[in-house]
Amino acid sequence: MTALASQPRALRAELFHRARRLGIDTGQEPVVYLRRDSSIVCSEGFDSQTRVELRAGERRLRATLAVVTAPLLEEGEAGLSEAAWARLGVDPGTRVRVRHPRPLPSLRHVRAKIHGQRLDAAALAEIIRDVAAGEYSDIHIASFLTACAGERLDRRETIDLTRTMVSVGERLTWSRAPVLDKHSVGGLPGNRTTLVIVPIIAAAGHLIPKTSSRAITSPAGTADTMETLAPVELDTAAVRRVVEREGGCVVWGGAARLSPADDLLIRVERPLELDAPGQLVASVLSKKVAAGSTHVLVDVPVGARAKVRGLDAAARLERELREVGEAVGLRVRPVLTDGAQPVGRGVGPALEARDVLAVLGNDPRAPEDLRARSLLLAGHLLELAGAVPAGSGEALARQILTDGRALRKLEAICEAQGGMRTPPVAAFTRPVTARVAGRVAAIDNRRLARLARLAGAPRDPAAGLELHVHVGDSVEAGAPLYTIHAESRGELAYALTYARTRPGIVALGEAS
Amino acid sequence: MTALASQPRALRAELFHRARRLGIDTGQEPVVYLRRDSSIVCSEGFDSQTRVELRAGERRLRATLAVVTAPLLEEGEAGLSEAAWARLGVDPGTRVRVRHPRPLPSLRHVRAKIHGQRLDAAALAEIIRDVAAGEYSDIHIASFLTACAGERLDRRETIDLTRTMVSVGERLTWSRAPVLDKHSVGGLPGNRTTLVIVPIIAAAGHLIPKTSSRAITSPAGTADTMETLAPVELDTAAVRRVVEREGGCVVWGGAARLSPADDLLIRVERPLELDAPGQLVASVLSKKVAAGSTHVLVDVPVGARAKVRGLDAAARLERELREVGEAVGLRVRPVLTDGAQPVGRGVGPALEARDVLAVLGNDPRAPEDLRARSLLLAGHLLELAGAVPAGSGEALARQILTDGRALRKLEAICEAQGGMRTPPVAAFTRPVTARVAGRVAAIDNRRLARLARLAGAPRDPAAGLELHVHVGDSVEAGAPLYTIHAESRGELAYALTYARTRPGIVALGEAS
Repeated sequence: MTALASQPRALRAELFHRARRLGIDTGQEPVVYLRRDSSIVCSEGFDSQTRVELRAGERRLRATLAVVTAPLLEEGEAGLSEAAWARLGVDPGTRVRVRHPRPLPSLRHVRAKIHGQRLDAAALAEIIRDVAAGEYSDIHIASFLTACAGERLDRRETIDLTRTMVSVGERLTWSRAPVLDKHSVGGLPGNRTTLVIVPIIAAAGHLIPKTSSRAITSPAGTADTMETLAPVELDTAAVRRVVEREGGCVVWGGAARLSPADDLLIRVERPLELDAPGQLVASVLSKKVAAGSTHVLVDVPVGARAKVRGLDAAARLERELREVGEAVGLRVRPVLTDGAQPVGRGVGPALEARDVLAVLGNDPRAPEDLRARSLLLAGHLLELAGAVPAGSGEALARQILTDGRALRKLEAICEAQGGMRTPPVAAFTRPVTARVAGRVAAIDNRRLARLARLAGAPRDPAAGLELHVHVGDSVEAGAPLYTIHAESRGELAYALTYARTRPGIVALGEAS
Repeated sequence: MTALASQPRALRAELFHRARRLGIDTGQEPVVYLRRDSSIVCSEGFDSQTRVELRAGERRLRATLAVVTAPLLEEGEAGLSEAAWARLGVDPGTRVRVRHPRPLPSLRHVRAKIHGQRLDAAALAEIIRDVAAGEYSDIHIASFLTACAGERLDRRETIDLTRTMVSVGERLTWSRAPVLDKHSVGGLPGNRTTLVIVPIIAAAGHLIPKTSSRAITSPAGTADTMETLAPVELDTAAVRRVVEREGGCVVWGGAARLSPADDLLIRVERPLELDAPGQLVASVLSKKVAAGSTHVLVDVPVGARAKVRGLDAAARLERELREVGEAVGLRVRPVLTDGAQPVGRGVGPALEARDVLAVLGNDPRAPEDLRARSLLLAGHLLELAGAVPAGSGEALARQILTDGRALRKLEAICEAQGGMRTPPVAAFTRPVTARVAGRVAAIDNRRLARLARLAGAPRDPAAGLELHVHVGDSVEAGAPLYTIHAESRGELAYALTYARTRPGIVALGEAS
């Protein structure tokens, strides 16, 4: 006799609710909404923030409860947030059972870590499996990340964490080696070297299947910029066809489930602004191993407003990337670069794509910093792959760029991804000028990014801004500092107002 | 010229939303709901889980954003969760401005703690002020708690934390000293010694203004039990009148803003199940200092399923309570007690109140464990207050109990709190019996508590259960183990089914 069968009819009904999609996006944490007067809220002692288990047929999901008052839900309904709806995969009205969740044994390992104990591979695997399965609430993830932050993961733990993060997701394989990749730690506005490096490497005959991200808080991610040139939402089979034909691709990585636990961890890590080198290394390298890469170049911008702020921290990160990479079968080369100011001229998807095309087209007005940075990194990657002797990578990269092979390769990759297109041009532009003469003392990356978003980027791919100066340049009074690009008069005006009330976005010092 | 004045009319409107109470209880973290197609979500790059600042006139509030699809909100509306609605204090339709929040400088101290640095009083004060003001999201609180868990707060930090937690809230003062208090660390079902101790201490002529909590996840809090005997929701002035007249009270502490940061921290600490002795000590002692207490007895139940599981941990906690207490001006006496099984017979508000009345009435059938435990603790408290020589407190407590003064004092306190009443009796009862003869080997506190909640406690004060056995008792087959009390046949049946399918709630071993 089961508990269920023995219950009176009226009571059995209490356990089930009709699923209803409420259209509330609560981020990655699934939330279930129940009425305060529902029997289960009363009898089980459930209150808001309680974790509960939802079952619909064979599907199971742990969710956080929010108790609601009557008008939002009908009697007997369970409202589901977008994440809960997607993960549970039900239809409107499906019977959902709500109950106390099973205990989560892996939390004892988090507590052990808090008490300063080392975690072995099995313990980390238990935690990461539960994270990937959505069993951890955001506060549990925050606690785990905090327990591992600072310097609290040793080398062995970082290696085990990287491996276990790979093991819970999909893994791509390629028909030949080496498989090259690049990654940049912490975004500088306009740092679109990927779109120059990938065609150089592919034109040199190497495999470089690059997955990139879209903007979360920035005005453009590499995937957004590439999307102004070609489609980027390709399924795994299509990616494989493109790479087999052209040697490289630049696609959005969000569709593939590569290191899915990492996707959940970084969403909580970002607002906490934790300095967690072990976590960072595991995050970067697990994605690369899952993508089937063998040789990875990591661009580490160092600067006061970059993710890595000093040379000591950079040196530690460099060593950690190399050694953990080796342990998980990756050749990793970290390269420290200048993280003090934006790269290139454009900030925003189409404006950045125009910089990329200017560099690849050997346009004399192409931004020299983007060109130099791309060649430096491409050269390192060619050397890392063993394609050229040490010290000669950059020359080969320059040759491939200069003779037009890189541009032709990008065009071919765009065609293979579904057809090359011309980046859009914004309907409205307006320059912001220097009030006084002076020398550019600093550029505020954060406010610059915000300004580009106010102008419409990345939602409007043509929107953003175009920088006319770099740090150290001398300008006359009235000279343009940057031009705002927008698709509507309203957004242009909005961005201009923001710009005018914050003249320090481009800070001018005394003329030298 | 301000940013606002210079904006076109249409843009100004975008910044404001009409407040709407959505009736969603998200716990303590305020949540604001905005439509995905609202201009601010688009232009500011806001996404779900972003922290935003809400302003309505002079009121300001930091909240977490949840993006919603159309039907839930009208255009131009900002939906507010219950916590956001209460804290912002607006009327329906009030204009609310949504924007990027100011940075939170105190988070740098949390990061410093993560990196193993000591926090000084000023740093802890910055953090706790921000927590009390609702500036921290739950994941920030989780990170702070984790960074301080384990043994990571030293004595000095625990003292500073305690003081700063007191300083951000209200503080009560009393006309004479000593002011006595008691606290129990971690709830055992039925552990209602407070209702016996308070009248003994008050009858002995001492001040004991006791604030208690309601159940959160248990079948009864002390405030719930007291409420079956007298009103407990008294404002500060009424509490003062009761205590001045009778020397003691037992009221619900939720109304007074004593150590408000603690209220926010423990809501996050509980689901994390952190072992954080420094935090625990600061939590307990800050409430007592804020309540104006001078001498505090702390009941520390030790047992495999209690909050404190072993004697080593108990000894450390004991020392920490004493020493931190001394530093903040409190005489603290921790007393280790048996945390292995429930105390008394009743589990549920009215059933526990009946145990208390039986003890105070010197009923020969009164539960001996509740009586003995209450006398032991009351004796310690009398000695701590310097009222009697060491070793003679329990005898005085027994005398006050035996001669009826304690019962008369409880009756007088109840009258002063608004009138004594008789605990209700449940409409339906049903015993659960032993299937076989045997000896009671263990009682599962957690399942027992759940069973009492299924029967209706604490919502129905009469509901719960009555234990007929304790660990070590021998029972015959068919003898009653406990009786379920419920106010409806449905709940009785529901609880019975749960009980029958989980015979291990009272585990029987071989008869000895």
